[in-house]
Amino acid sequence: MNGKRPAITIFGGTGDLTFRKLLPALYNRMLSGSAPDGQDIIIIGRRAYTDAEYREKAREWVKKFARLPYREKTFETFAQSIRYYRMDFTNLEAYPALDTFLDEQGIETCVFYFAVAPRFFATIAEGLFQIGHAQGSQVILEKPFGENLDDARALNARLEAAFGAENIYRIDHYLGKEMVRNVQTIRFTNPIFADAWDAKHIACIQISALEDVGVETRGGYYDHSGALRDMVQNHLFQILSILAMERPAAFTPEAMHEEQLRVLRALRPLTEENIADQVVLGQYDGYREETNVAPDSKTETYAALKVFVDNDRWRDMPFYIRTGKKLGRREMEVAVVFKSPSPDIAPTVLLVKFQPTEGVYLQFNIKRPGDFEDIMPVKMDFCQSCSIANRINTPEAYERLLSACFHGERSWFSQWDQIETSWKYVDRLEELWGDRTPAAYAPDTAGPREADALLEQDGHHWFREPEVQ
Amino acid sequence: MNGKRPAITIFGGTGDLTFRKLLPALYNRMLSGSAPDGQDIIIIGRRAYTDAEYREKAREWVKKFARLPYREKTFETFAQSIRYYRMDFTNLEAYPALDTFLDEQGIETCVFYFAVAPRFFATIAEGLFQIGHAQGSQVILEKPFGENLDDARALNARLEAAFGAENIYRIDHYLGKEMVRNVQTIRFTNPIFADAWDAKHIACIQISALEDVGVETRGGYYDHSGALRDMVQNHLFQILSILAMERPAAFTPEAMHEEQLRVLRALRPLTEENIADQVVLGQYDGYREETNVAPDSKTETYAALKVFVDNDRWRDMPFYIRTGKKLGRREMEVAVVFKSPSPDIAPTVLLVKFQPTEGVYLQFNIKRPGDFEDIMPVKMDFCQSCSIANRINTPEAYERLLSACFHGERSWFSQWDQIETSWKYVDRLEELWGDRTPAAYAPDTAGPREADALLEQDGHHWFREPEVQ
Repeated sequence: MNGKRPAITIFGGTGDLTFRKLLPALYNRMLSGSAPDGQDIIIIGRRAYTDAEYREKAREWVKKFARLPYREKTFETFAQSIRYYRMDFTNLEAYPALDTFLDEQGIETCVFYFAVAPRFFATIAEGLFQIGHAQGSQVILEKPFGENLDDARALNARLEAAFGAENIYRIDHYLGKEMVRNVQTIRFTNPIFADAWDAKHIACIQISALEDVGVETRGGYYDHSGALRDMVQNHLFQILSILAMERPAAFTPEAMHEEQLRVLRALRPLTEENIADQVVLGQYDGYREETNVAPDSKTETYAALKVFVDNDRWRDMPFYIRTGKKLGRREMEVAVVFKSPSPDIAPTVLLVKFQPTEGVYLQFNIKRPGDFEDIMPVKMDFCQSCSIANRINTPEAYERLLSACFHGERSWFSQWDQIETSWKYVDRLEELWGDRTPAAYAPDTAGPREADALLEQDGHHWFREPEVQ
Repeated sequence: MNGKRPAITIFGGTGDLTFRKLLPALYNRMLSGSAPDGQDIIIIGRRAYTDAEYREKAREWVKKFARLPYREKTFETFAQSIRYYRMDFTNLEAYPALDTFLDEQGIETCVFYFAVAPRFFATIAEGLFQIGHAQGSQVILEKPFGENLDDARALNARLEAAFGAENIYRIDHYLGKEMVRNVQTIRFTNPIFADAWDAKHIACIQISALEDVGVETRGGYYDHSGALRDMVQNHLFQILSILAMERPAAFTPEAMHEEQLRVLRALRPLTEENIADQVVLGQYDGYREETNVAPDSKTETYAALKVFVDNDRWRDMPFYIRTGKKLGRREMEVAVVFKSPSPDIAPTVLLVKFQPTEGVYLQFNIKRPGDFEDIMPVKMDFCQSCSIANRINTPEAYERLLSACFHGERSWFSQWDQIETSWKYVDRLEELWGDRTPAAYAPDTAGPREADALLEQDGHHWFREPEVQ
């Protein structure tokens, strides 16, 4: 036992996440030379596999989902690093045997990846703690982190006791996307944006995460969760905090987290008086007939929020957030709508797109050719995913996240105090909302009419990128 | 004689300018429905033509140079509006007969176009004044306006006495270009630029008018003029004043001219001490062997200037101006180089291109895909001339200028006090420069090495648009 060998141990090693995302990402890291030399991959699952059998499964999935080409020789080296270990990780009595196994492999501390349902997080953490393997190790957790504020607090207490606060890496996948990080680069390295990044220059900021699909096979999970828990509490508030943060004193993870947290804490509280003006929840027609959805469900499949960040920079400038299912298109983007010098002149708009393509779009005004004084908006479009060279170089989200964890780059993950603050806001929203029925909307439309009115009352509208000229 | 019929009278009606530019522009105006109904076109020249003969000449040139297609029926209507009148306009005694002719045509006042060498301007103005046709008419003059400050003052006094100051339209062709007007639109209607338009946000502004050709057949004119008189005094200072002006109280021609004038008056004076740091003149190798050029000529075929506008907005921020011949490319553009947050980050650059294509280009920083913290500049390019629809709608410079004159839109033309102020600067430059020899540069290079050093001493370099990715 030397404790020096780098290792990653995955709980839930026979699930979709491991096959489709984690194994291909780990293979890509090896092929691109990013993986640490001699890294062990310990796979823990409840099914019976020999190492050889599991490695053959892994080969299939790497061939099918890896970003980089399948190379026999690289895969063989990769496969040799994989050990499969069968255990019932829901049973605390099974952990001493895991301790023995890890010792035999020469592994003392490592990165643990909890690729399992969130209800098992606490048990696994306790098991690893009892055999002394949590201490000094890192743990990566999938979202969601808790189901509400109280639940999240209890889970966090357990994890912190086992691993220590600084070793917990809570995934927010959108943070792994290049373009979320790109927002910060665009803002802070270009003075035309950096110096106009406030309520004095900006009319509104819109964050949209639109899905074309419905709940599909996830009706059971989703009917319990809804759009607020599934998207707003984590992803959209995270993006909001990145957009709205003050320039940190230094671009260290700690300083950035501190500034993001200050944004979330400055959110104007929802009240009985303002909730009707600031929140629209919707449910698509036919949702109640989906598999595993309650026939009288009031779960929201759509949420649009107007929020205010009550500080000097953003005083009284609306941030509009929307997300939902069955909206006719898949689109994840941020639109920064600058103030227009007069009502008949189109605003300058900076659009940062995350999905389905990554890119940056800027709309601004030029003089209309051929007329005397007309002004027309034009778009400049830098489509990052359009460039083959860029596509090859863009690591998949999981490669990036694994790499960030191995390097201790905590800024790529959600911090507890941010999660806690977001939950407070969402819990309060749900409390005020009570048992109202969400607004109905037809599938494959832009959502409930009320969500348009939310902006129209302020003289705004949801920005949509014009078709290519 | 009713005096109500609109008319344009062109002196120099058998010259290249009239054939290649003015007649095609007037035809285009008729075809596009922009010409006033029943407008007469009086052509004055020294050669013998009947109306019919001249109209046939006009047909050839319209077919060859008009932007819009040749249409027989339209051209016939157009041709019927043309009258040819032969006279020696350098002889004041010939003007009473012109008076009689104009009366017979029913023309009292009109627009006069002096499409002749500048040395005849004063005589024609005097002749028209003596027969009473200058009063209440407008006059359009080609550049250059004078050869130095004293000469320009004398000419202006004569013209103002004849026509009145408000009726003099001095052409500066670059003002007729869409994109110069576009600079104002881009700046004033987009807050990301409007609020960053000062020395606090901008590192430098560069104005370039580069030619690939040499003096060609114009050696006699050019050797007398040089780059300073031919380009800097008029075009480049005009563009500089548009770029640097304060936001006018209203976008009226008067208010805009006032602001432009204030810029020119705020130019930091050249002195014995600063001229070496602020001025580079050059002459391409082989220039002295060109036709009609003096074998010992010290005329500059290249000029690069660093100028400062000494006001609060532009305090100590350099404007770099350059123009010249045989520079290997034809390029007219303005580059606004914003300050970079650190030396290793590329600056945000706004490039407005006038020639050979019209367009707007913006370079700014995004996060380099695939790496952790790298920043890379990307370009967004809106090429106005790339759009066929836009090209069709863009009037040629002369159509625009004629139209502006007919509508009394004086903002499209140079004002006397601006010309006077520019001449003062250039006269002083030439006085300080004395009989120094311009720096030599090889044809088809970017100009003398000294012009690069002019920027390098400030930590800048001439911006060049990167090749298309």
